[in-house]
Amino acid sequence: MTDSITDVKAYMQQLGQKAREASREIAAADTNAKNAALLAIASELENSKPALMAENRKDLDAGRANGLDAALLDRLELTEARIDGMANGLRQIAAQPDPVGEITDMAYRPSGLQIGKMRVPLGVIGIIYESRPNVTADAAALCLKAGNATILRGGSEAAYSNRAVAACIQKGIASAGLPGDVVQVVETTDRAAVGELITMSEYVDVIVPRGGKGLIARISAEARVPVIKHLDGICHVYIDDDADDTKAIEVAVNSKTYRYGICGAMETLLVAESVAARLLPVLGDRFAEKGVELRGCGKTRALIDGVVAATEEDWDTEYLAPVLSVRVVSGLSEAIAHIEKHGSHHTDSIITENLGTARRFMREVDSSSVMVNAATCFADGFEYGLGAEIGISTDKLHVRGPVGVEGLTTQKFIVLGEGTTR
Amino acid sequence: MTDSITDVKAYMQQLGQKAREASREIAAADTNAKNAALLAIASELENSKPALMAENRKDLDAGRANGLDAALLDRLELTEARIDGMANGLRQIAAQPDPVGEITDMAYRPSGLQIGKMRVPLGVIGIIYESRPNVTADAAALCLKAGNATILRGGSEAAYSNRAVAACIQKGIASAGLPGDVVQVVETTDRAAVGELITMSEYVDVIVPRGGKGLIARISAEARVPVIKHLDGICHVYIDDDADDTKAIEVAVNSKTYRYGICGAMETLLVAESVAARLLPVLGDRFAEKGVELRGCGKTRALIDGVVAATEEDWDTEYLAPVLSVRVVSGLSEAIAHIEKHGSHHTDSIITENLGTARRFMREVDSSSVMVNAATCFADGFEYGLGAEIGISTDKLHVRGPVGVEGLTTQKFIVLGEGTTR
Repeated sequence: MTDSITDVKAYMQQLGQKAREASREIAAADTNAKNAALLAIASELENSKPALMAENRKDLDAGRANGLDAALLDRLELTEARIDGMANGLRQIAAQPDPVGEITDMAYRPSGLQIGKMRVPLGVIGIIYESRPNVTADAAALCLKAGNATILRGGSEAAYSNRAVAACIQKGIASAGLPGDVVQVVETTDRAAVGELITMSEYVDVIVPRGGKGLIARISAEARVPVIKHLDGICHVYIDDDADDTKAIEVAVNSKTYRYGICGAMETLLVAESVAARLLPVLGDRFAEKGVELRGCGKTRALIDGVVAATEEDWDTEYLAPVLSVRVVSGLSEAIAHIEKHGSHHTDSIITENLGTARRFMREVDSSSVMVNAATCFADGFEYGLGAEIGISTDKLHVRGPVGVEGLTTQKFIVLGEGTTR
Repeated sequence: MTDSITDVKAYMQQLGQKAREASREIAAADTNAKNAALLAIASELENSKPALMAENRKDLDAGRANGLDAALLDRLELTEARIDGMANGLRQIAAQPDPVGEITDMAYRPSGLQIGKMRVPLGVIGIIYESRPNVTADAAALCLKAGNATILRGGSEAAYSNRAVAACIQKGIASAGLPGDVVQVVETTDRAAVGELITMSEYVDVIVPRGGKGLIARISAEARVPVIKHLDGICHVYIDDDADDTKAIEVAVNSKTYRYGICGAMETLLVAESVAARLLPVLGDRFAEKGVELRGCGKTRALIDGVVAATEEDWDTEYLAPVLSVRVVSGLSEAIAHIEKHGSHHTDSIITENLGTARRFMREVDSSSVMVNAATCFADGFEYGLGAEIGISTDKLHVRGPVGVEGLTTQKFIVLGEGTTR
């Protein structure tokens, strides 16, 4: 792909300006028009499979030539099944309720004014992502449903694929009579474009980075526009004194082994001292069967053979791999203290039958999802009933946990009077 | 006041660390303890009037010696009535419902999990403010009710007063058995302390600046911690073709003249061409009576004698004074375009009897408060039923409009299962 854009700053400013204008139109668009666009994009994608896969092959060939590793090449690939998956995702988003314009908490005040809140789009959302071309359609669709304009910046390794997906999006939007600038793709692979996108706060309201921790950390450090993100998913399961044995074992195994690479995978298992001797040997066998390497504290190593000694660093590590750190704690307070010190405020679960213990864990663990007797791998917008998700936020402000369409909106006050004065 | 703190960075880090620890305790504190602390602080303030006023006099004397202007000296002064006002504010906050722990949207999912949201404190809030010592008590009280720890940094011109108010707060907190570090006051007037406070994101979750635009702009530019703020209150009233004459005139006059110095004061009046000839002469007389200087477009000047010509700059100016810019527009679309271009997304009002017009204005004007037939000066947390407010946000993320106790909290997902696995 040749890069004909030389003045990146001017180019990005122009993109931003067009996005801001388009955001006003899409904010005022009715639900039918937005849904029609989503369904038209889905059909375009399905009808363009050969073209999408041909463009994708150019990225795959270049990737192989550049020595991309197998995992990255896998994420980059657009198969028929993945294109169908994108189309189905779009149809699901179309079927969801439209949050824009929802009015809540409307009440009369002593002044006679009637005051409430109206849900409205955020405005312009910048999405910065790596490798997976299906993010182009997912992210654009979620933003569009929420009434936002989107500027998409994919990785250079997926440039041909992203452009082909974007062409389908453009056709779908046009067929629904919406302005094409609602979804724009950054057409340069120059890294300076990212620097512009994350600092032009007059045109961009929020940045959603999707990719590895390195990408997200860099963007967060340099952004002047708010960023919705999570850096790490260091998730814990704490097996309490009052845990049910079967639940403890099944949830611990599932939390680690459902899928190793997801941010909701358990990375550290905490076990109350009173149940450790009974449960850890069983868990040791189960994890050994699955090929999970254990790294444990002294007490864990005394109960399970062949466990590597965990270092301080292990407690702070998101393995995203068949590796698990295991620590025996004195009880609830030490478990909470460990999670607060070493966790990433993503998702943490307690296994207990004791209501008081569960209530204290729910209140005191400061994570975006706090679970009781449930596997951490459930941390997912679809499982939570949000439809699709644009990511998971561990930020405290605005939106926390899986972020769906509603997380891409905000609220304003509306105030109705009859010529009311103070 | 002598300044014995030499290593400002280490001092602020220590303050932050203590605040983070205290935030865990106050997050878990029950409602009764928090309310008891608020009521005890109120009594302390009332019982300490002579001491508070004596300390305040030191600031006032220094202020006069340093040539502070009359408006600033007025804001700095603590009178008996103002101390009573602080105490009453605290009692009102104590009487409000406690948002912490509220669980909403709890529903079963197909997996069998029960998933909802729990409202929780933000954590540690840094308040940076100028001159008004009563902010010390207001801000600390709102943060405490929401279960947060607070670090307060007042202006050096109010250092003695702030310290005296803080002593009352400390006594009240201690008497309720809560940790004293829940509210800490920065004990150095070194400006570097602000730089530390707004960048130590490991200890501070959000910054709320209260003061002039200069202070807020500086903090926003340098902060690495999220900031809840507004910069300008360039509020508009638009008198539509279908306005009721009396409502139009009364709301316009009240929006400007209720109080000139508040952020909700109208700064620009927009009038539909079709009603300008009928209404502008009447409005000209009313504003003349009140001593409000008008700056108008050509059409306005043709209808009211002695109106200065408005420059382009006037449309972008928050006067906070008896000055008003007036523009005749062709109708609703031009009014909305003017507000989007020149407004500050604070508070804008339309005067109309036409439902369709009102609905379009409400949807398309992207401001924190959008009003219909109501005076912009109502933009206020107390009037909105939030109890007290810590400020008004024109940010899009997290919280928008007047910010009360709920705006100082966030939500996390809670997920309940029965050993549920995927």
